[in-house]
Amino acid sequence: MRQAVVERLQSAMRDAGLDAVVAASPENYAYVAGFVVPSHPLMRWRHALTVVTADGRTALLTVDMEETTVRSKADAATDIRVWGEFTDSPMLGLADLLTDLGLTNAQVGVELDFLPAGDFARLTSELLPEVKFVAAQRLLDRLRQIKTPEEIEILRQLSRIADRAITDAYGAVRAGMAEMDLAGALTSNVYRYGAEDFRLMIVATGERSEYPNVGPTERVLQAADLCRVEIFPKISGYHAGVCRTAVVGEAPARPREIWQNLVECKYMLLERMKPGASTREIYEAFITKFSELGLPAIDFVGHGIGVHLHEEPYLGKYGDAELEAGMVLGIEPLVYGRGMGFGLQNKDMVTVTEAECELLSDYANTDELIRIEA
Amino acid sequence: MRQAVVERLQSAMRDAGLDAVVAASPENYAYVAGFVVPSHPLMRWRHALTVVTADGRTALLTVDMEETTVRSKADAATDIRVWGEFTDSPMLGLADLLTDLGLTNAQVGVELDFLPAGDFARLTSELLPEVKFVAAQRLLDRLRQIKTPEEIEILRQLSRIADRAITDAYGAVRAGMAEMDLAGALTSNVYRYGAEDFRLMIVATGERSEYPNVGPTERVLQAADLCRVEIFPKISGYHAGVCRTAVVGEAPARPREIWQNLVECKYMLLERMKPGASTREIYEAFITKFSELGLPAIDFVGHGIGVHLHEEPYLGKYGDAELEAGMVLGIEPLVYGRGMGFGLQNKDMVTVTEAECELLSDYANTDELIRIEA
Repeated sequence: MRQAVVERLQSAMRDAGLDAVVAASPENYAYVAGFVVPSHPLMRWRHALTVVTADGRTALLTVDMEETTVRSKADAATDIRVWGEFTDSPMLGLADLLTDLGLTNAQVGVELDFLPAGDFARLTSELLPEVKFVAAQRLLDRLRQIKTPEEIEILRQLSRIADRAITDAYGAVRAGMAEMDLAGALTSNVYRYGAEDFRLMIVATGERSEYPNVGPTERVLQAADLCRVEIFPKISGYHAGVCRTAVVGEAPARPREIWQNLVECKYMLLERMKPGASTREIYEAFITKFSELGLPAIDFVGHGIGVHLHEEPYLGKYGDAELEAGMVLGIEPLVYGRGMGFGLQNKDMVTVTEAECELLSDYANTDELIRIEA
Repeated sequence: MRQAVVERLQSAMRDAGLDAVVAASPENYAYVAGFVVPSHPLMRWRHALTVVTADGRTALLTVDMEETTVRSKADAATDIRVWGEFTDSPMLGLADLLTDLGLTNAQVGVELDFLPAGDFARLTSELLPEVKFVAAQRLLDRLRQIKTPEEIEILRQLSRIADRAITDAYGAVRAGMAEMDLAGALTSNVYRYGAEDFRLMIVATGERSEYPNVGPTERVLQAADLCRVEIFPKISGYHAGVCRTAVVGEAPARPREIWQNLVECKYMLLERMKPGASTREIYEAFITKFSELGLPAIDFVGHGIGVHLHEEPYLGKYGDAELEAGMVLGIEPLVYGRGMGFGLQNKDMVTVTEAECELLSDYANTDELIRIEA
């Protein structure tokens, strides 16, 4: 278990009057346990659970198929319980575990936005009728907004992997090669630089660069193509998202001009991101400048990131929060999907520090469009 | 919507006395709608739902961020409803939709193994108190076991992509190159041959080939290394899983001998997989032969596959089912994780036809270990 997270959870449980918190989603499991059970996000019937009590006891419930992996990763103080994929019920395992922890009359926080209705009904009406189950997803969401130093280090590493993987992939191609070649270099780099996995590879070049969410094709790179590449490498359940835009040879005047505006927006965001800043005010300053530059409005220009691709807080038009030290956000000034025939996006990873903020994706120089050999 | 699936659902609803079925999981959404909403499997708060009524009306609920994608993929007869990510509640959208469909007093099937407990509580106690919600996950699971011709075609395509991507990646490396080079060729091939995405890349060579679930490292290929590579390419939410084992140069006698046994097991499975065959009997015939060959027992040697990595039926020691035409299974005779210092696995995709079965992953010749240049 992640000791820093266990302590934060204990403190939050005291404030909320909870005796224990059970995390069942792959995201909160990774947050509390510090590792991912490989098949948990892929086969959702293979329930994996963390239990932390208000007095600091910790337990894990795992399916038999993953027992050796869990035992190799868990600390000695954590009670590990195993249920059989074809022979047992994970909810029965959870009920036994909570009973052994003396929690049959306790207040127990669970993720009501994840725990399936059928499992929850079995727990409440049959297995643990005296337990008072309380929604704990907001408590976990709030805790996760302020990353621990260990989480920030993982996100720093992931940010650099993404940034370097994209930048070096641009360096490895030239006009005449295909999007697939760019994708091959990119995915190879992502693993080579240390990621365990990735999500959402976007490779969009030339006229395809204006489409939001497209993978690589056999399209061949040509002079003056704009290329948008984004990827989310993963380690231990965490994501970083970086997007870089490149041009094959020389860019035409209009995209070059828009790029300069996006770069100004990036520096304006970095200038304003610091503890105490209002997320709404940052968004409004951004959108004002963005509109003055003649660029089309977007609903948010940044969002928290970690075990989820998007987390609170958003730098957007809905809601308002104060930035705090330890937050990690993706910021993404972008222009695409507007029928202009090209798209431009610069997505960076940023952490809020004690006094200001730190750019985590600092490998590429994005003051100009990255250049691919024509 | 997939018309063949809508018709099967209608028939199943008649048998079960249901007025409508709502699919909410990314897997069953893909099954019914015929496409994936890109962010649905990645951001679970972005609920996407399909509704099919007993009289064949169809509707989709989508988050605003994905509206253009959904509209571009849905058919004209389907009612499309949109909810706002930052402004609305998806359950309110579902309640409005079911109300407009005249289902406020109906029996509605939902996935109680997926729908979050909090959302379900809101539906039942607040929004639609007169609807009788019924667990429909087993009904959907049962329907999905018999694939439509369209689904079989997708799985055939995916099987060949996986098989060819691995085989050609083995052909592109030689002794002195690293696992990372193999992974780069493999991922590039997976996209090049037509997949939209993939899951679970395993690249395990030399002494690492005995570890079940490991990605590529900088380990350099050496003469006599055994190499286990597995990948699950994806199209429209469907997976195929293929694993191939190769040797750098010449294999030592013991792995070569075990390989011949695994190949015999494969042909024995293909021989027995046909409509009416008992899954338990197939497993027992396999495990008897497997044990006679001195190989260590495994709990199952095959499983259904489709929108989930594992689906019913299993060819295993638990449960028993009759194979039926239209089923698609992965079969995987394997030996690894036994402290032998190497691992061997041959995972193929098979569909049960009217009279026998068809090997879908038929690109590589696996009668001998695939050879990598030393």
